[in-house]
Amino acid sequence: MSDPSCKACSGTWPGSDHFIADLGLSMAYLHEDQYFPGWAVVVFKRHAIELFHLAPTERIQLMEEVSQFAKVLAETFDAKKMNYGLLGNQMPHIHWHLIPRLSNDPAPLQPVWRIPHDRVTLSADRIQATIARIKKRL
Amino acid sequence: MSDPSCKACSGTWPGSDHFIADLGLSMAYLHEDQYFPGWAVVVFKRHAIELFHLAPTERIQLMEEVSQFAKVLAETFDAKKMNYGLLGNQMPHIHWHLIPRLSNDPAPLQPVWRIPHDRVTLSADRIQATIARIKKRL
Repeated sequence: MSDPSCKACSGTWPGSDHFIADLGLSMAYLHEDQYFPGWAVVVFKRHAIELFHLAPTERIQLMEEVSQFAKVLAETFDAKKMNYGLLGNQMPHIHWHLIPRLSNDPAPLQPVWRIPHDRVTLSADRIQATIARIKKRL
Repeated sequence: MSDPSCKACSGTWPGSDHFIADLGLSMAYLHEDQYFPGWAVVVFKRHAIELFHLAPTERIQLMEEVSQFAKVLAETFDAKKMNYGLLGNQMPHIHWHLIPRLSNDPAPLQPVWRIPHDRVTLSADRIQATIARIKKRL
C-alpha cells in the first residue's frame, strides 16, 4: 500500500544518501539536520498514518524495531536520554524521530523543537562516516 | 521498582485530579495544560527510563496501551492527527505525551512544543467533564 502524493512512499524523503539500514518493516535514515548529533528517522515501509491503524503484529514489530534502533543510537552517541516522537504533522506517513540527547546538549530540559538553531548539514563524507559509526552497532 | 526522587513514583505528578484511567501497566492522565484540547499523558507504573530498558513483554503491552488510548483520544476529540512523544528530558520516568491535533489547530504543521502559548488550566468541573467524555469511549 502506498500513496503517490506521499514523500515517503515516492522515495523523495528522506534522501537515499541518508539511508542507514533496513530494519524489517521500517527503514532508518539519518536526519538531514544534525544540529542534534545522531538524530535519526525510522520510516514505516507501507503507507499508514496512526499507530492504531496498524495490525497488532505490525505495530509490535515496528515498535521493537524502533526500540532496538534507539538503543543502537544511544550507545553510538553515548546519549544521556533518548527522545522518541511520532508526529506526522507535515507528512502523516508513520515515521519516528529518534533523537539522542547528549551530555553537551544546549538545552537538555527542552524538547528539540523548542530550541531555535540553524540547520546543520553535514558533508557527504561526514554523513557516510556517521552512518558507518551507527552501522557498526547494528 | 520506584525512585523516591521521581515525581511520577512519588505521585506528585501528574495530579490525581487529572487521573483518567488505569490502562494496565500504565495510567492515563489529562495534561495540566489544555491549550491543545485532549492532551493526555500515559505514565508507566514502574520506574524505567528508556523503551529498550523494558522487558519485551512489558514494552509490547505498554505500546498496545498507548496505541489503544491514542485511538480513544482521537475519537473523543475528532483529531485530524495524533502526536506521540516520549521525551523525559525533565522527568526521565517513562511517560507518553498523546496530543490530538484538531481541525482548528493554531499551527497544524508544527510540533506543539514550537507553538508559544499561555497555559490553559481548566476548572475542576471542566477537568472532570473532559475526563468523563474520554472515559465513555474506554
